[in-house]
Amino acid sequence: METITRILGIDPGTRFVGYGVIERRANSLVCLDSGCIRAEGDSIAERLVIIYRGLREVIARHSPQAAAVETVFTGNNPKTAIAIGEGRGVALLSAAEQGLSVQGYEPALVKRAVAGSGRAGKDQVRDMVRVLLQLAESPETDHESDALALAITHARHLTTAERTGLGKSGLPLRRAKRQVPDFILKQLPPGIL
Amino acid sequence: METITRILGIDPGTRFVGYGVIERRANSLVCLDSGCIRAEGDSIAERLVIIYRGLREVIARHSPQAAAVETVFTGNNPKTAIAIGEGRGVALLSAAEQGLSVQGYEPALVKRAVAGSGRAGKDQVRDMVRVLLQLAESPETDHESDALALAITHARHLTTAERTGLGKSGLPLRRAKRQVPDFILKQLPPGIL
Repeated sequence: METITRILGIDPGTRFVGYGVIERRANSLVCLDSGCIRAEGDSIAERLVIIYRGLREVIARHSPQAAAVETVFTGNNPKTAIAIGEGRGVALLSAAEQGLSVQGYEPALVKRAVAGSGRAGKDQVRDMVRVLLQLAESPETDHESDALALAITHARHLTTAERTGLGKSGLPLRRAKRQVPDFILKQLPPGIL
Repeated sequence: METITRILGIDPGTRFVGYGVIERRANSLVCLDSGCIRAEGDSIAERLVIIYRGLREVIARHSPQAAAVETVFTGNNPKTAIAIGEGRGVALLSAAEQGLSVQGYEPALVKRAVAGSGRAGKDQVRDMVRVLLQLAESPETDHESDALALAITHARHLTTAERTGLGKSGLPLRRAKRQVPDFILKQLPPGIL
């Protein structure tokens, strides 16, 4: 199994799509790029095209091998939920179509992985992203911060999977993730990121 | 404004995607192609890629200028609604990315346009699709039948818009549609399809 070194995090949407590319190095995670695609257009179809092309461009620029995309199972009403799905579908497609392995993460899991609590606020996530990636400044938008947090979460899970041997034997990571108890994940030293 | 002669109808989904391409001729509508893309794959991302490539192939084969995609605002639960959105997002993207103009239609409107009632059953829609397109046999699946019904609905609306002058002046069709009272739509002779 090829070792995944570059990870693209995507915070999907139909107007604003956050993205962040990080690289796993020996003892650190490095941010290669991050930003927010602003999809302006009258129709949802036009906006989805802007998002698709924007993500393709990011992928072409950095050649990440894996993508982590936010998974949400809620929505205030069906109309909102369908719109969330439209944005998410195009994000998943953009990554998978370019050959990236794609993994979904729920927001609470990302917050716990990055800021230590599933109920961490946006500001805490932003601060932790800055610290973990040793950025000079915090990410500009929450979309960007969330995307980087997703990439960090995936990097952490990959490291855990490699260390424990889970995931190496072709076990899907989603299953591996469930097999690593949370209290072990929490005890891992920060250095292994 | 270029006259739209070829229309692609898409019944979106994340496992089965119906498609149908029709051509508007002087006094008739002709079915050029129809079928159902079966997306098999373990993950939603893989399935979305199959759907995207399948629709691209259909578009490349027939070069339709417009697409009609089913719009649903319901879902039994948010999870279902998000899945519906994921399929729909990729359908909208596939068409818009290839330069097609894209229009959404709600199921009740399609049923009314094709079978005369917003509450028509799947069988009635299938029968009417066969009659209106003069097919030797009914479409094989409901997905295919729904996709052709969507294309027929769009063809009918384009014809109405052209006849009334609405839509010609650059008025978005969605608005034009609302300005043509239903009782007029119903009185139009079948020949104008």
